[in-house]
Amino acid sequence: MKVAVVTEILKANDQVASENRARFDVGGIGVVNVMASPGAGKTSTILATIARLGERRVGVIEGDIASTIDADRIAAEGIPVVQINTGGSCHLDATMIRTALPHLPLEALDTLFIENVGNLICPSSYKLGADVALVMGSVPEGYDKPYKYPGIFAKADVVLLNKSDMIDVFEFDVEAFERGVRMVNPDVPIFRVSCRTGEGLDAWVAWLRARLGAATPATTAVG
Amino acid sequence: MKVAVVTEILKANDQVASENRARFDVGGIGVVNVMASPGAGKTSTILATIARLGERRVGVIEGDIASTIDADRIAAEGIPVVQINTGGSCHLDATMIRTALPHLPLEALDTLFIENVGNLICPSSYKLGADVALVMGSVPEGYDKPYKYPGIFAKADVVLLNKSDMIDVFEFDVEAFERGVRMVNPDVPIFRVSCRTGEGLDAWVAWLRARLGAATPATTAVG
Repeated sequence: MKVAVVTEILKANDQVASENRARFDVGGIGVVNVMASPGAGKTSTILATIARLGERRVGVIEGDIASTIDADRIAAEGIPVVQINTGGSCHLDATMIRTALPHLPLEALDTLFIENVGNLICPSSYKLGADVALVMGSVPEGYDKPYKYPGIFAKADVVLLNKSDMIDVFEFDVEAFERGVRMVNPDVPIFRVSCRTGEGLDAWVAWLRARLGAATPATTAVG
Repeated sequence: MKVAVVTEILKANDQVASENRARFDVGGIGVVNVMASPGAGKTSTILATIARLGERRVGVIEGDIASTIDADRIAAEGIPVVQINTGGSCHLDATMIRTALPHLPLEALDTLFIENVGNLICPSSYKLGADVALVMGSVPEGYDKPYKYPGIFAKADVVLLNKSDMIDVFEFDVEAFERGVRMVNPDVPIFRVSCRTGEGLDAWVAWLRARLGAATPATTAVG
């Protein structure tokens, strides 16, 4: 009975996610759902990625249990941002995204980053309508995260290993991390990046740019 | 309706937690529920704590979505351990603990550590029957975790800030972290520890020892 209720909830969520997806398609907006543990560097990665995306017009949805710390960081860069406070819920869902959309200038965006709640478990079950599921690991967390949280790594379209400048400091076993990812997701691209040093970010952003396709030319964007 | 079901589930869980609690009381077993993000160092902290508890007879329950990586580390030290694989569930609940107990030599234990699933959100809602709710932060995660995940820090009986040897490397704002904890939990003890260097562990273990009270003398333990 409990399972049935959960299944129904997920089915209803998928329906709203499809509607979000359709809305993004009409607007020609590429959407990235960013998932990682607390403190893996989701906000820093979004900011570093936006800085390298150049011509693309970007917005952000920030998901948190509480606080506007991350949204404030995004807004400080002059980037349109909406904060969703889930008030305890451990993930974003498609309805939260739908509710946030009217607060963004969608007609003036090519790309939307959705920063999910810091959690390697629950967000993987809830589709939001995104094009790209980005799952991040972080060197200080240890190599074993894909083995312990296989579900979310299995659903990734791309994996970033952040804080790569700390690989030696933490004696991090990169091979074992990547092997763990490949066990559940054999062909997923994995990029080692450091938002602090900039290492690896160009390769990741080149991949993302190719994946999202051409941005809508700014001249035809409004109207 | 959804809320009602959730409330019922939590109420049923609390009932089982009380039964676990009664069972621990009969056995004179002090129980610590260890909660933190993925990769904050829960297993390392449990091992470093056990090494310093000396005369106490300790067992461990390991909770993970998948894998026996942590339980294997515990078992390698000759410590009685049971692995719970939640198979996707983002937290341990009291019934999982009840199911695990027959697999531990309870009559020969003074202290039981329960390592919860790596998650700063969901575990805080599910009582297990423990005496001490230990919530850990970790320096590489950033100072802002208590602000973003206030619910779990509010329920802590004690807070550890692990990887304290990395405070300078990550330019971690200890004051802001502690202020965030105090906002939701004014009187909770906070210890800065490093499982790598051993820094701060003696103070934390002294606190824990005092909190758990005297261990059952080994001579009267069996039978």
